[in-house]
Amino acid sequence: MKTNPGRFFEDYRMGEVIAHAVPRTISGGERAIYHALYPARGALHSSDAFAQACGLKASPMDDLITFHTVFGKTVPDISLNAVANLGYAEGRWLEPVWPGDTLTATSEVIGLKENSSGTTGVVWVRTTGRNQHGVPVLTYVRWVMVKKRGTAPTGAATAPVLSPVVAPLDLVVPPGLDFTRHDFTLSGEPHRWGDHAPGEVIDHVDGVTIEEAEHMLATRLWQNTAKVHFDTTQRPDGKRLIYGGHVISLARALSFNGLANAHLIVALNGGAHVNPCFAGDTVRAWSEVLERAETSSPGVGALRLRLVATRGAPGVLRDASGKYEASVLLDLDYWALIPL
Amino acid sequence: MKTNPGRFFEDYRMGEVIAHAVPRTISGGERAIYHALYPARGALHSSDAFAQACGLKASPMDDLITFHTVFGKTVPDISLNAVANLGYAEGRWLEPVWPGDTLTATSEVIGLKENSSGTTGVVWVRTTGRNQHGVPVLTYVRWVMVKKRGTAPTGAATAPVLSPVVAPLDLVVPPGLDFTRHDFTLSGEPHRWGDHAPGEVIDHVDGVTIEEAEHMLATRLWQNTAKVHFDTTQRPDGKRLIYGGHVISLARALSFNGLANAHLIVALNGGAHVNPCFAGDTVRAWSEVLERAETSSPGVGALRLRLVATRGAPGVLRDASGKYEASVLLDLDYWALIPL
Amino acid sequence: MKTNPGRFFEDYRMGEVIAHAVPRTISGGERAIYHALYPARGALHSSDAFAQACGLKASPMDDLITFHTVFGKTVPDISLNAVANLGYAEGRWLEPVWPGDTLTATSEVIGLKENSSGTTGVVWVRTTGRNQHGVPVLTYVRWVMVKKRGTAPTGAATAPVLSPVVAPLDLVVPPGLDFTRHDFTLSGEPHRWGDHAPGEVIDHVDGVTIEEAEHMLATRLWQNTAKVHFDTTQRPDGKRLIYGGHVISLARALSFNGLANAHLIVALNGGAHVNPCFAGDTVRAWSEVLERAETSSPGVGALRLRLVATRGAPGVLRDASGKYEASVLLDLDYWALIPL
Repeated sequence: MKTNPGRFFEDYRMGEVIAHAVPRTISGGERAIYHALYPARGALHSSDAFAQACGLKASPMDDLITFHTVFGKTVPDISLNAVANLGYAEGRWLEPVWPGDTLTATSEVIGLKENSSGTTGVVWVRTTGRNQHGVPVLTYVRWVMVKKRGTAPTGAATAPVLSPVVAPLDLVVPPGLDFTRHDFTLSGEPHRWGDHAPGEVIDHVDGVTIEEAEHMLATRLWQNTAKVHFDTTQRPDGKRLIYGGHVISLARALSFNGLANAHLIVALNGGAHVNPCFAGDTVRAWSEVLERAETSSPGVGALRLRLVATRGAPGVLRDASGKYEASVLLDLDYWALIPL
Repeated sequence: MKTNPGRFFEDYRMGEVIAHAVPRTISGGERAIYHALYPARGALHSSDAFAQACGLKASPMDDLITFHTVFGKTVPDISLNAVANLGYAEGRWLEPVWPGDTLTATSEVIGLKENSSGTTGVVWVRTTGRNQHGVPVLTYVRWVMVKKRGTAPTGAATAPVLSPVVAPLDLVVPPGLDFTRHDFTLSGEPHRWGDHAPGEVIDHVDGVTIEEAEHMLATRLWQNTAKVHFDTTQRPDGKRLIYGGHVISLARALSFNGLANAHLIVALNGGAHVNPCFAGDTVRAWSEVLERAETSSPGVGALRLRLVATRGAPGVLRDASGKYEASVLLDLDYWALIPL
Repeated sequence: MKTNPGRFFEDYRMGEVIAHAVPRTISGGERAIYHALYPARGALHSSDAFAQACGLKASPMDDLITFHTVFGKTVPDISLNAVANLGYAEGRWLEPVWPGDTLTATSEVIGLKENSSGTTGVVWVRTTGRNQHGVPVLTYVRWVMVKKRGTAPTGAATAPVLSPVVAPLDLVVPPGLDFTRHDFTLSGEPHRWGDHAPGEVIDHVDGVTIEEAEHMLATRLWQNTAKVHFDTTQRPDGKRLIYGGHVISLARALSFNGLANAHLIVALNGGAHVNPCFAGDTVRAWSEVLERAETSSPGVGALRLRLVATRGAPGVLRDASGKYEASVLLDLDYWALIPL
């Protein structure tokens, strides 16, 4: 058998480090496709000149290009037999990715816990993406429910202790970033760090109806091979499940309208793909400001944001019993950098 | 309210200069996507080697990439609350855009005229796109019908006087362009300037059936955010209106078959998006030679062309009463450069 | 008549060399789009760093990007009036194509044979693609059935003698390629040349359901203008016929799962587009190892592979009478390079 059957729960060992395959060089082509796939308008990721005026050598790759590329590498080893993608934590962007960089990824198994059903288990991995110099560019924890190969109990019962939020002191600001002369006209909105207060909710207004071709182009671009995204014969209803990362990027791009100056994602505190998304859905987004923090870089503040993607009109997040509403697709908690 | 509600008619002042947001670096990735979106085959925009043989340093960006990018920047300030895109005039390409250039745009309000209904007005703007050196690369006048915020009469009644045609002496030929050794085998057709006479009509033969994913990829690539292009809930019929520029590019690319040597667009004399275009439409095109002019550059002539895009088979342009036929999508009047 | 009516059978002369139009510069943008269109994961075409570790200066363009680009140039002269694309032979990749290279193509007519019907004939051409230095990068023979313009017999009865297989000694290994330190973890699979034996069959497992937008983006990217791929009015059933090369690339990309180390295509021995492919089809692939050969390059072996694309589940290739099954889309015979 030469093809990859994927790993089952029994195939993981605590502390094991898995080196993922297929290094990937990311360049201006990937950046252009990102702009064609999502209504991304953040000035720092759109313009070399703007990025240079903010102290960077050029416009770095969108932070989510880094995330999707690293995530895509992990799929054949982590989630080919996954039943569900359960969560993210402790995500941190550590170094910008520049056009021409080559990314690789490794994952360390940091938790294994068999479910009471005896047919599945939860695998926690800490994934690290590195550039061609071996420098870490991104790290995050992800946990997935994976099928067991057999019925024999494994005894695995180790769940890691994870931080609910990345601490402000652990946020890494790209070296050189300086927002003291930030151009609010070119960026598109006047709102700065101090204009946002915890509790503020911003409805991002715009909506995008998704097509099959778009989400498949996106998912292939990240070399994510999970069958359910491409093959209509994988589900009884003949639908292709849209890669959760497509919804993340779409919602983040929509959030430009109201959060144009929240330029860089520097941490992923948590996230849940609450309901599946399919072609034909019209996706909208809203954000809630959760927390503010300062950084030691000139003019650079941090906002902790909840980003919620919905199918159809935005409504309440959860029902009276605390369950997510059916219209909610994504609930993401992240830190972004914004001019003071 | 942090999101952009768009401007209403009352929000414009005569002479005001609006600096549009989100500078954009355009590179080889955007060029490649353009070739994937449109059947573009012009040799000068396809090949560095061909462009170098014509005296340029490399293959410049397609002139319509420049147009769409600049146009896209203006949407949030000019046409977010527009009822109709009424026309273009006095468009001139002033300098080639090269891979790696960053474009910004400004618009000066040159006309404001309230409509007799009292609920809308017409806004004329002269938009200028500039590269990272501040050098103008494109200028054009566009006018749109915009909703009024209120009912109080504004008294605005200023319509600018616009040239119906850019004069041949005002056409800007890219510095260095030399068609004296133009390779007609590589360009695909033998026809030169002298082979075209005013009154000649060319049916470009080919047709392309449009898909939703394609026009949305295109429109997003230019960071054009008008809701009607993306969101099926914006119209009672659930259709997404295709960005008029998508039809311009499609028709221009189709016109290669018969006008392969009309390499560069240097002026936009006028244009009307006559009827809306939707996914599923099969777009065809025909051209009429309107006028010929010489230039002072070696081997370089100019043709003034009417480019008409139709849904389905090409027929007459207007009915007996002078009204455009329902099958007509676009009527564009432009100057192109072609070897003598 | 300024548009290209295409050539008819009577328009070809034995020995004639046709220079095809529209040179094309291929760069990182085209590479990125290729990765968005196909689930391509071969490490050598994905990563500069990986390619450099294999002795190359950078990641070369995917071999099929070269093939499609050269093929696309030939369409207006060879297959615009073609009734059928009958076969390929003697295909050899002669030099890698690097980002920034400009490709042109010529075709020599090497066979002309009128069919007994008197309404069509078969045209054989040997096509050569060259880079901007005039260095051949690809050569292959292709034959097509072309309509006759008239009914007068032409007497043409020359079919060339073609090799059924490119001999191993004629395979060109890219200069510098060295697989002695090949990283099997990064490439994604442990299987080397010696792990494959003639007769082995690999089911590549994954499937991809095709969308209209995708195959049109691909076909336009190669500047292939055949009407049937774009225009729903060309066939009575209103379907767009998918460019055969789209199926080749899709099947080749799917074959990564089981043949991840078969990095470079160096020869095309033969191939048949057995049945038409349409949007909505879910394409799968399987490969058969036909032959093994050594090369004189360090650590580099060659595998001769049959690549079969099917619609729906893979089954038998031919029925009892020797006819291809209706589910078979493609039967391709090629040589690939793989670490020893």
